[in-house]
Parts: sequence; C-alpha cells; structure tokens
Amino acid sequence: MADKPLVGIIMGSKSDMPAMEGCTKQLEEFGVPYELVVASAHRAPAKVHEWASTAADRGIKVIIAAAGKAAHLGGVVAAYTPLPIVGVPMKTSDLGGMDSLLSMVQMPSGVPVACVAIGGAKNAAIYATQILGATDPTWREVIVKFKQEMAEA
Amino acid sequence: MADKPLVGIIMGSKSDMPAMEGCTKQLEEFGVPYELVVASAHRAPAKVHEWASTAADRGIKVIIAAAGKAAHLGGVVAAYTPLPIVGVPMKTSDLGGMDSLLSMVQMPSGVPVACVAIGGAKNAAIYATQILGATDPTWREVIVKFKQEMAEA
Amino acid sequence: MADKPLVGIIMGSKSDMPAMEGCTKQLEEFGVPYELVVASAHRAPAKVHEWASTAADRGIKVIIAAAGKAAHLGGVVAAYTPLPIVGVPMKTSDLGGMDSLLSMVQMPSGVPVACVAIGGAKNAAIYATQILGATDPTWREVIVKFKQEMAEA
Amino acid sequence: MADKPLVGIIMGSKSDMPAMEGCTKQLEEFGVPYELVVASAHRAPAKVHEWASTAADRGIKVIIAAAGKAAHLGGVVAAYTPLPIVGVPMKTSDLGGMDSLLSMVQMPSGVPVACVAIGGAKNAAIYATQILGATDPTWREVIVKFKQEMAEA
Amino acid sequence: MADKPLVGIIMGSKSDMPAMEGCTKQLEEFGVPYELVVASAHRAPAKVHEWASTAADRGIKVIIAAAGKAAHLGGVVAAYTPLPIVGVPMKTSDLGGMDSLLSMVQMPSGVPVACVAIGGAKNAAIYATQILGATDPTWREVIVKFKQEMAEA
Amino acid sequence: MADKPLVGIIMGSKSDMPAMEGCTKQLEEFGVPYELVVASAHRAPAKVHEWASTAADRGIKVIIAAAGKAAHLGGVVAAYTPLPIVGVPMKTSDLGGMDSLLSMVQMPSGVPVACVAIGGAKNAAIYATQILGATDPTWREVIVKFKQEMAEA
Amino acid sequence: MADKPLVGIIMGSKSDMPAMEGCTKQLEEFGVPYELVVASAHRAPAKVHEWASTAADRGIKVIIAAAGKAAHLGGVVAAYTPLPIVGVPMKTSDLGGMDSLLSMVQMPSGVPVACVAIGGAKNAAIYATQILGATDPTWREVIVKFKQEMAEA
Amino acid sequence: MADKPLVGIIMGSKSDMPAMEGCTKQLEEFGVPYELVVASAHRAPAKVHEWASTAADRGIKVIIAAAGKAAHLGGVVAAYTPLPIVGVPMKTSDLGGMDSLLSMVQMPSGVPVACVAIGGAKNAAIYATQILGATDPTWREVIVKFKQEMAEA
Repeated sequence: MADKPLVGIIMGSKSDMPAMEGCTKQLEEFGVPYELVVASAHRAPAKVHEWASTAADRGIKVIIAAAGKAAHLGGVVAAYTPLPIVGVPMKTSDLGGMDSLLSMVQMPSGVPVACVAIGGAKNAAIYATQILGATDPTWREVIVKFKQEMAEA
Repeated sequence: MADKPLVGIIMGSKSDMPAMEGCTKQLEEFGVPYELVVASAHRAPAKVHEWASTAADRGIKVIIAAAGKAAHLGGVVAAYTPLPIVGVPMKTSDLGGMDSLLSMVQMPSGVPVACVAIGGAKNAAIYATQILGATDPTWREVIVKFKQEMAEA
Repeated sequence: MADKPLVGIIMGSKSDMPAMEGCTKQLEEFGVPYELVVASAHRAPAKVHEWASTAADRGIKVIIAAAGKAAHLGGVVAAYTPLPIVGVPMKTSDLGGMDSLLSMVQMPSGVPVACVAIGGAKNAAIYATQILGATDPTWREVIVKFKQEMAEA
Repeated sequence: MADKPLVGIIMGSKSDMPAMEGCTKQLEEFGVPYELVVASAHRAPAKVHEWASTAADRGIKVIIAAAGKAAHLGGVVAAYTPLPIVGVPMKTSDLGGMDSLLSMVQMPSGVPVACVAIGGAKNAAIYATQILGATDPTWREVIVKFKQEMAEA
Repeated sequence: MADKPLVGIIMGSKSDMPAMEGCTKQLEEFGVPYELVVASAHRAPAKVHEWASTAADRGIKVIIAAAGKAAHLGGVVAAYTPLPIVGVPMKTSDLGGMDSLLSMVQMPSGVPVACVAIGGAKNAAIYATQILGATDPTWREVIVKFKQEMAEA
Repeated sequence: MADKPLVGIIMGSKSDMPAMEGCTKQLEEFGVPYELVVASAHRAPAKVHEWASTAADRGIKVIIAAAGKAAHLGGVVAAYTPLPIVGVPMKTSDLGGMDSLLSMVQMPSGVPVACVAIGGAKNAAIYATQILGATDPTWREVIVKFKQEMAEA
Repeated sequence: MADKPLVGIIMGSKSDMPAMEGCTKQLEEFGVPYELVVASAHRAPAKVHEWASTAADRGIKVIIAAAGKAAHLGGVVAAYTPLPIVGVPMKTSDLGGMDSLLSMVQMPSGVPVACVAIGGAKNAAIYATQILGATDPTWREVIVKFKQEMAEA
Repeated sequence: MADKPLVGIIMGSKSDMPAMEGCTKQLEEFGVPYELVVASAHRAPAKVHEWASTAADRGIKVIIAAAGKAAHLGGVVAAYTPLPIVGVPMKTSDLGGMDSLLSMVQMPSGVPVACVAIGGAKNAAIYATQILGATDPTWREVIVKFKQEMAEA
C-alpha cells in the first residue's frame, strides 16, 4: 500500500486536534495514509486555497474538513476541489454544535459537503475509507472486515 | 460507459419522489447509471435488508438514501453494506426537516451516514459522482467540468 | 407470577446501561420479569433482527428500546415485531437529547414508537407495566397501588 | 367482539378533530371499539377529571390524548387513571408542534405519557391496538396482518 | 400589614426548592406574606386540585407556580382558580428549560399562565408584588422604592 | 364602572394590530376600559418613555405590550413603570415567534415581563383582567363567570 | 457627493435579489453610492476572491453580504478584506433562516461578520450608512434625519 | 493618537465583565481608546438613556453593547444614537445564548444592531476597529496588519 496520502484532513484550529484524534487513530488502524493540516478558512484563506486546489494533484482522494461555529471550512475547500468533502461539525460550548452542523450541512446547490455527526471524528475516518472502497476492493475489504468485527464485539 | 447502475437510490416513500427529481435528473446529466427503489425501513424491512445487502455485489458503488421525519433509512441501509451512504434528509411540514436531519446525521460511532442539506437532492447526486470520481478519472473529469461551468454561469 | 420475561429491554450501547438502571430497578420493584439485551441497530443488525422477530414468540409482551443520537433502535425493532415499543431517548452531550427524541418519536405512518421523556428510564418501566395492566388486572393493581403511594408521598 | 369501547380518545379542542380523523378511521378499520370526547384540561377540568377517573371502570383499556401548544391533556388524564396514555402532539402554526411535543413527552418521573409523532393520529390508533394486542391474541393478530399488508403494499 | 398569605407558591417537586429560594427571599424582603406548597400536578392531582380551588377563598391574590420539563402545574392550577398565575419554568438538565418554558407559556385560548424567565424565581416574586400593587398603593410603593434602589445600585 | 382606562395596550407596530384584535375584543366583552397606543421602543423611544412613565399616574393598572422579533417593548416599558407588564410575543414569519418569545420572557433579574403564548392576544386580555381581579371583587367576578361559561361551552 | 461606490453589496445567488431590494432602495434614498455583485462563495470562489480583495482599493468602505443556508459568503469575503462586513442572513424555506443566521454570525475569533436580522435587507443599508457616518458628519447627518423622521412617523 | 475614547462599551451587568475582557484587551492591543460603562437597560434606563444620547457628542464613533438573556441593551442604545452598535450576545447558562442572540440580532426595521457571535468579545473589538478603519487609513492599517499576523501565525 502506498505511503502517499490518500486522505487529506484539514481543521480550522489547533484546538480541534484532540477532538479529531478519533479520526487519525482510525485511519491508522485501517492503514489509510493521510496528511493533516491546520488552517482556518477565515484567518488563513490563502493557505486553505493553496492546499485545497492542489490536493487532487497530490494524489488525495477524499478530504475530511473539521470546523466549529460558523464552520465554513468544508464549503471553502469544496469550492476549490473536485474531491468529495466529509465534514465534521465540532461541538461548541454554547450551542452544542448545532451552529457547526448547520453551517456545514446546509450547503447550497452545486457544492455539497457531506456531514457526519457532531464530533463524529471516527466516523469521518470510516466514511473516507468507505469512499476509497467504493471502487477499490482493497479498501472495501478493510471496511467489510471492520463491520464484521464490530458485529461480533 | 457501462449501463450497469453505479449509484443506488433508495427512498422511504413514494411521496419523496418529486423532491428527489433533482437527484435523478443530475445523475442523468452526468451520465451516471443508477437504480431506484422505494422501500421503507419500517414498513418493508425485509425488502430494505435484501436490497442493501446485495447492492455491493450488484455493482453499486454508492448509495443515496432519502427519508423524512425519523429518517432511519440511511442508517438501516448502512448496517447492511460496506458502501458509503449519502443521506438526504427530507423537509417535513412541521419541523422543517430538522427531525430528518438529526435522525440521519447523528449516527453513532462505527456506522456513518454522511448527509447533504435538507432537501439536497441535486447535491446528493453531485456528491455520489464525486465519490465515483475519487478514484476514477472519468467521473472526476465530469465533476471538474461541472464546476467550471458553474463558475462561468 | 411467571418468571418468563414479559418485558424485553434493548439498548444500543453498554454505555446506556447506567442511564437505564431506573428502568430495571422499577420493573424489579413491580415484580415484572424482564430480559435485557445490548445490541446496536447499526453495528449488530442481525442480532437486533433476530431478537426483535422472536420476542413475541418468547412471550415478551412489551419492548423498551433505549438509544441515543440518531436513535433508530426503536424503529428498527418495531419493524420486526407486532409488540408495542416504548422508546427512551438518551440524553446526548451535544444536543441534550433533542436528536434522540426526534429520531425516536417522529416515526412515519404505520410503524409507531411511543416515547417517554429524554432519559425517562423509570417512566418507561411504569409505562410498560401500564401496558401489561391494560388488560391484566394483576398488573393494573400494581399501577393503582403505585399511584396511591406516590400521591401520599 | 364487544361493542363496549376499548379505547378512549380525548382531545383538547374541536379544532383537533380533522387532524385526528386518521386515528378514528384506523381504529374502525381494525374493528377496535372506541369512545371520543372533546374536553380541554384547562377550560373544562372537571369534565376531564370525571372522564379520566372513570375510564378504567367503563372498560376502557387505553387512552389516546391529543392536544396542542402547552399540551397538558395527556398528563392531566394520566394523573387520574392507571391506564396507559398515548399522546398525540398536535402541529401548531407557530412552532410546528415542538411546543406540543415537549409539553407531552417530557413528563416527570412517576407519570408517563408515551408520545407518537407530531400529528401522528393514525400511529396512535395502531399503537393503542398494539397495546390491546400485547396480551390479547385477537388484537395481536390484527396488527400482524396489518404489518404484512403494509410490507406487501 | 396582614399576616394572612397574599401569594401562594406551588412547586411540582421538592427538588425545585433551592431554585425557588430567590422567590421566597424576595417576597420576605418586600414583606409580602405567602404560603408555600409542594405538590405535583401529576403525582398528587387531588392535592393540587384542593389547594388551587380554595386559594382564592383563603385570601390568596396571586399564585406562583414553578415546575420543570412537561411543566403542567401552572395550567392545572389555572384551570381551578380565577387568580392570576405567574409561571416559573425550571431549568432542565437536558433541554435547558426550553421544555418547561414552552409547556408553561404556550397555554391555549381561555386559560393564560404568564411566565417569567427560565429560573426566574426572584422576578416571579417581583411580578406577584406588582400584581398586588396594580390596585393597592401600599404594594405599589414597595415596587417603586425597589426600582429606585435598583437604579441607584 | 369608570370609563377611565385601566389597561394600557402598547404595540410596536401598526402591523401588530390585526393580531391583537382578540385582545381588545375580549377586554370589551369583559367591559374593561383600555387605551391603545402604537409606538416602537426603537423607532420612537421618547414616545414610549413618555407613555410608560405616566401610565400609572393616568390610572392605568396593567400594561399589555405586544411586539415581535427582538421584542424589547415589554422590557423597555417595564423599565419606566411599577405596573405589571403582560407581554404578547408576536408570531414571526421566519422563526415562528421563538425570537419574540425569548426576547420578551427571558428578562434579567429585577425587571420582569410576564408572557402569555406566542400570539396570545385574547389570553393577555384575560390575564390583565385577572390582575385587576386579584384584589377587586368586581373584576374577579367577571373572570369567575367567564370560566364557568367556558367550562359549559 | 462622489458617484464612486462606498458600499459593496454581494449576494450568493440571483434568487436573493428580491429579498435585498429593501437594501438597495434604502441606500438610494440615503444617496449612498453602491455597487452590487452576485457571486457564490462556493460556485464562483475566484470571482468572490477577486471582488473582495480589491474592494478596499476600489474605494469601497463597507461590504454588505447576503446569503442563505450555509451562508459562508460573509466569512469568505471577510477573509480577504480589512473592511467591515454586514451580514444579511436570508430566510430559508425549511429552517426559517436559523441556518443562515448561525452560519453568518457565529464567526470564529479574529474574523468577525456582524449580522443584522434574518431578511434584514433595509437594516443592512441603514447600518452600512451608520458605519460611513461613524467618522463622516455628512452621513451621520443622514442617519440623524432618518431617525427623526421615523420617530415622527 | 487621541486619548479621547472612540469606542464606547456598555454592558448590562458587572457579571458580563470577565466575558468582555477579550474585547477591552484587543482594543488596547490595537491602541483604540475606549470608555466602558455598566448599566442595565431595564434596571437603570435613565443612565443608559443619558449615556447613549450623549455618546456621539462626546466623540464616540462606535458602540459595543454586551448583554445576555432578553438582551435589549443594544436596541435600547440604538434608539438614542445615530452611531453604529455592535452587539455581543452573552452566553447563558440555560439556553446557551440563543436567547441573547435572537434578542439582539432580530431588530425590527429601522433600527439595526449588528451582532457578532455569542460571546464574541474579541471580535466585537476587531469589528469596531474595522468600522473606524472604514474611512480612516490609520485604523485600516491596524486591521490590515492584524490580519497579516493572523495569517502567518
């Protein structure tokens, strides 16, 4: 299996890192190579632009975007890449993450971001792997095995 | 391009059909072959079980599940297949679709359903095609072209 | 009174156990025999299917289903049994249980799940006993006495 | 089968009648005898008190309570009877029925009201019949047959 | 000033007592005589009925009703008395008190309960005194003085 | 009975007038003299200030304040008068009146506004009369009679 | 007064135009020169980038950004300009605009977007003029006069 | 740079002070002179009136208003001044600040308050400086530099 990252993870703030550990850990258990970048769509738009618009050419197949509050990161990345974006709305201390969820999921026509649950870091990793497995039997097999183990647990 | 369906669309009720036209129309514009089934997770569980657990073997790569209210369809299908599920929460007449959205997106650890916006039928089609294009250059190109046309429109 | 379980309790995750203690404790105080199973509708669908579709034949009269977030368990069980389902939406750390409540209560036409309050474990036990007492004077009497003691407390 | 009502339907206002037609119609299709009363818990408390506290003695086995806004009717009836109450939260023009739902479902410890969906009139009838069928094979059979027909439809 | 209570405070549960201290303390500072009873509308309906329907004859002029979750207490009391009811929706651990608020404030036509803020114990006392002061100059003066001191603080 | 107004009705906009007809009509049926003013707390603060701070001296005993959206009117009037304020949150076209409700009911410590339901114009009239009747047997009698007629209807 | 635009209005979709008429009309009444562009942050990111990053140099002093659903436009523009952004959350057909509001207002630390009400097109124009008037007596005077006329109306 | 305050900060309660430290600290880092007053719109309306209506004449260019619950402060200040108001909705312990947000942002036509995020103290300072910088190159430069540093951080 190649070492070249297949999944790109981007998060809006370093403070999202602990909440996203379930994601990186699951990708590692699956053996899915990934790259991770911290860049705010609002504070560092040029960095996000650069990262998003070159992701496909670098061999990235799926992008996981995690952000909280007015969580624009997924949408901003989606604007610059043909790759599918998996959004992870971060839990927030005041509105519980309802703001992050609506800001991510309610994307207008033409530019989807598909969201997992609030704080669903691990599920984002599983879903990204399911996307890889949509057409690639190797990754499909990883998911099939994972589901079997889960059912038996 | 093969005629064998690559995308499976399942919806909980015939009444969801008009709201999902944006989805089938977009897939047709993209040239993505799909199959469509109406089956309620609650009223016809055996049919859903059968359809979901054989989808991968029939060559389906991505599933789009549309349902409203206590929208369990996406999760029920996800339980029976390794394929990625794109959830479309239907708008509801009382709560606007907030019930559908939360019932779809808040999936527990291990079994993700990734949701597009409430009523996001067209975006579900685009996202399913993005999933196909994650690893297949032909479908990638379809998305790249779509985004260019959109930017120019 | 028979030892054969009359109430079947199913919960989506072991982590729901502490929150459901009020339920088992109340059934024990009432002397209602019950069985308890932990099985996720999403992670272990075959187990849920098996348990739900045989419950009536095993002599179960009422099912209590407890789950959180996208709480499909009640609906999934309801799909496989003619027995009445009492749903207990679990409190969630981000949305307070609003997600669990809507996912359980907003069941579509044809397959009801009747919900008690968020975290209403004890009330689910009382309600299940009320269902038994609907037609059975012994259990009716248990409820009548319980209500009298409550009024006097 | 006796003509004596087994299900008692109470609603807070005559204006709830059209929304509850799905309930009476379904009971009639099932052949479940019922009685129906319109009485507001707030405007006519004595009437509600009288009706609720004599329901069990009149042979009623299950009560369906439909109300909207600050929907206290289910709880008020529950206070006066050992019978199980099935709550139907009415849709409201301003908050969509969220007010009715929370007012019905969030019952405090000791006195449950189990709710079906907002506007879930038909489901309330099905659920009441499921309660009758919990211990009575005749009504159980009605539900089993209903579910089969639904699956085949 | 008479010792006979002018304000009747009723709360649904002993657990509401600490949250209502701001109410009794403020009435004491104002010198408003009050009586206090703990009685659940659901667990002890006869006690509530008795208390509410005799309140006016006992000389009570205003009733403060505090309750949480499906907070029916205010409405139930209102059904049995011509006195104005001031509702205090209790904060709840899952929905923050939104359930209590809607259950109290959304009273149907004909039987109002006027609510102060979630957890607004002190404000309920002030409002009850304002009601007394609507027509009685002594209590009016108490409020006028209170507002002056507040503005100067 | 005096013709001098006992109830002052203030509303934020002429557009609230139709929704408040239920209020004036009910006061007229009760024979409660009232005055009515349209003045926005934000657009015409001096007019509101003047009206509110002289209301008590003009003989007004209770104030009904109706406003929508960021419904500050009740709070602004409350700041300038010792009289009890009955708030009527207006239904809004986007959020259903949830904004009006929270803006009115969540008043901070020291300055209560007691709210009736969203759009509860008629109930505001009843409540204002209940306040008059708190200490005045004539108005008490009006309410007693009204409640009897309601129970008989 | 210069004809060079001082206010830049950007909206995510042509369909927002009718809802924004109140904005352009008010600016015209105030005599504030403006420019208007329709460009989606997601469908046409390069156009938005270009427009936003050159706005200040073109002499624009304030930007009004109107968008609905996952309304990222304000935040995306804010990322590329030092100018103050006035956000107008558009009403949405399913969630009433709560999604637009939270997506606009809940901006993370460092990059504010200040929002007016859902659908607050006219208020955005007034606010933009207030910003111009913060330091410029001519525009200040326009607002002073507008407020006087409003108070007298 | 003048020592005369350019920004006026008003908050409804001393208890809002810690949550607003991010605001004063940021203004100090920017070198923006400000004045700060604690005055409740409801408890001390005359003080608010006096402060707001003289703010412009004292040289204040922008007002930051922070308040919680039924957060009327921004609107009340806006009624008395032509200056732009930046609202900061305070987080609340029961509803997370949704009440504060809606009470501030949903201002009716004619009198806008532009809101930053719930608890967005620092962003309010940035936005106020952006307003100063709308027409004044010195403050514009402060923002430009701030954004550069943020992007590099």
